[in-house]
Amino acid sequence: MAGAGSLGPVEQQTVDATNEIIALGRRAQTAAAQLALAATEAKDRGLNRIADALDASVERIVAANAQDVARAREEGQTDAILDRLTLNPERIKEIAEAVRALTKLPDPIGEITESWTLANGLGIERRRVPLGVIGMIYEARPNVTVDAATICLKSGNACILRGSASALATNIVLADLIDAALRDAALPANCVQLVRTPDRETAQAMLTARGVIDVLIPRGGAELIRAVVNGATVPVLETGVGNCHVYVDRSADLLKALPIVMNAKTHRPGVCNAAETLLVHESVAKELLPELGVRLQQSGVELRGDDATRKLIGGVLKASEEDWSTEFLDLILAVKVVADVDEAIKHINFYGSRHTEAIVAEDAEVIQRFTDEIDAAAVVVNASTRFTDGGEFGFGAEIGISTQKMHARGPMGLRELTSYKYIIRGDGQTR
Amino acid sequence: MAGAGSLGPVEQQTVDATNEIIALGRRAQTAAAQLALAATEAKDRGLNRIADALDASVERIVAANAQDVARAREEGQTDAILDRLTLNPERIKEIAEAVRALTKLPDPIGEITESWTLANGLGIERRRVPLGVIGMIYEARPNVTVDAATICLKSGNACILRGSASALATNIVLADLIDAALRDAALPANCVQLVRTPDRETAQAMLTARGVIDVLIPRGGAELIRAVVNGATVPVLETGVGNCHVYVDRSADLLKALPIVMNAKTHRPGVCNAAETLLVHESVAKELLPELGVRLQQSGVELRGDDATRKLIGGVLKASEEDWSTEFLDLILAVKVVADVDEAIKHINFYGSRHTEAIVAEDAEVIQRFTDEIDAAAVVVNASTRFTDGGEFGFGAEIGISTQKMHARGPMGLRELTSYKYIIRGDGQTR
Repeated sequence: MAGAGSLGPVEQQTVDATNEIIALGRRAQTAAAQLALAATEAKDRGLNRIADALDASVERIVAANAQDVARAREEGQTDAILDRLTLNPERIKEIAEAVRALTKLPDPIGEITESWTLANGLGIERRRVPLGVIGMIYEARPNVTVDAATICLKSGNACILRGSASALATNIVLADLIDAALRDAALPANCVQLVRTPDRETAQAMLTARGVIDVLIPRGGAELIRAVVNGATVPVLETGVGNCHVYVDRSADLLKALPIVMNAKTHRPGVCNAAETLLVHESVAKELLPELGVRLQQSGVELRGDDATRKLIGGVLKASEEDWSTEFLDLILAVKVVADVDEAIKHINFYGSRHTEAIVAEDAEVIQRFTDEIDAAAVVVNASTRFTDGGEFGFGAEIGISTQKMHARGPMGLRELTSYKYIIRGDGQTR
Repeated sequence: MAGAGSLGPVEQQTVDATNEIIALGRRAQTAAAQLALAATEAKDRGLNRIADALDASVERIVAANAQDVARAREEGQTDAILDRLTLNPERIKEIAEAVRALTKLPDPIGEITESWTLANGLGIERRRVPLGVIGMIYEARPNVTVDAATICLKSGNACILRGSASALATNIVLADLIDAALRDAALPANCVQLVRTPDRETAQAMLTARGVIDVLIPRGGAELIRAVVNGATVPVLETGVGNCHVYVDRSADLLKALPIVMNAKTHRPGVCNAAETLLVHESVAKELLPELGVRLQQSGVELRGDDATRKLIGGVLKASEEDWSTEFLDLILAVKVVADVDEAIKHINFYGSRHTEAIVAEDAEVIQRFTDEIDAAAVVVNASTRFTDGGEFGFGAEIGISTQKMHARGPMGLRELTSYKYIIRGDGQTR
């Protein structure tokens, strides 16, 4: 072809990737149409078979995973990444138990969420249906392969899983095992499909697979999510970034404030609902910050504060402008003394990522203002930010925490993976 | 700048457009934060002021509109476009009445849609909140300026309106009038803002205004919607294309089928819920099609059929592959004889746009299969496709009909322009 020049091979590769994804997508659509009508018992049977297969295949999974881990180690990946990548018998058992737990959850599909009758006699019902084909794009956490596949299955959605190349050996074993279990359970073929060439081209092809993939869910770091959002023409369920704050008001019970801040920062610093910034009302800063500062520092937390904070706690670095907007995902906490709840709300709505924002306060009026005016998926009063979680909320399963406003906000369980359709019943009505 | 060359001015223009949209967006965010907390009475007062201002400004609006219409006529626009662009006193009165009708609708904002208490004592409530800042991108229908502004206002959302350049004179008068009315009613400034340089650059800048615009709603033809979906990094509420079908089953009451098909095709052929394809079960084709064909042709409908149809009705062109997937938006109907409901379902799920699909049938099992297996926003049994409409559904107002599965499906009223936030109340809980 004239002018193709050196772009030839790349174009070819892209065409191949697009064809691969379209082929997966078409098969997924067929599967999705059947799965949408599957009985709850059939889906639960499939889930139990998957759990059994996981339990029965521990050695095979661990062996494949060891290859991935060895390669990642050779490549010089960090301990944190190696840890996320690793599956051991205990973790596999936990994953299998989580799959079994899904069988205990109510099936959202088919529920009539509303119904009414019009004056002209038409009856309208709103029925919950699956989204269809869900494309998952995620990083080197092979547990996501099973989590996503099984949550999609229970919610009646077919899925296309595009994990990281560094977990490919593990993901192939898991996907094969899931596929065999679903066939055993007489569920439609291709409900769960793994992208077996997880390169940049297949990811790109998924982003633009309008008409075959209904929704994309990226799971991973801020960069991955940004890349998906920027490149996608398929609608995206955005999960993620949590620059969460705890504001301790003048009216706070400081005996509550101490454990809440400690828990929000140190319980699991690497997750999205951990606190990243502490805001303290100036009236209680002197009483709270010295003691809290010592406790945090004793727990290994590095503090970065404004000038007022640095006067009250020793060994505190000066917080930069960037620190206020950073999701540290680490034992680092930015600390600022504020004049009042107005300043706290303004700071949070400016720097926050609309994930989870907490207030410690006893003054009902202040609490009301905070819950009304903070724009976030979850606003927490007198408790830790760590409660924004599908498990804690009682959803039983979670595919991620949405920080967008459309479709779903906060923890996304089975119900958040559904859409609806209207069914209108008449006896000949026209307009 | 080196290498900028002839792109210089364009880049400058793009920077200007981006700055303009970001400035509008920041003002809209401030307005949105205040409007989210506005009392229902305040919003309704604003709506009444807008309606009154419309009634009091008929001459001014008509004069500005006459400029737009004259220019469009000079440019040689079609009668259909001129008609959509035109505002006369009667239409302005209707628009004002629609605004007043919004004051009678319940305010969705603040509603607690769910609440529950966890075992650890945490109370969780799910509260309905506005989406925030809505960006409307639409064509030369100045009525949308008022419709969108007022529906957004009632649902607590600030909006940025980017209409067509060809309606700019009209839109400026309408936006100024709305702005003055809102100030009179002591509502926050900048709740409603018009993009006053509606060129390609400002549209493009809106598509990528992540962080300042929460949701984009394109309203217009398929091309506009495609351009928005392809270019947007801001989430999009996709409205639109309706390639709707009517399937007449073997079990149909043909006395119902006749008026339903006539109504679905001819009542208002230019709208998205009009029927574009008729599918007829082969057992009733001989009885139904000759009579129905004559009636349709007498109403000016051009028929394009498969071979079986052409044997039963005279003067029918052969339908092309393209005809099955075309939204004609005109007095044209594609007609196909099918072997059974399976073929009908398969055809619809393949060619349809997931908007509205109707069946005429008495057989409960066939109806069940159709309503279960058809993937569309609305599935209509024994009634016209024309009922998929916010007004008909009783929503009282409608900003468009969603054909996507995420967030909202089908007619979008006030409630569909909302999100939610979780409020979690504790007394010191940690994990």
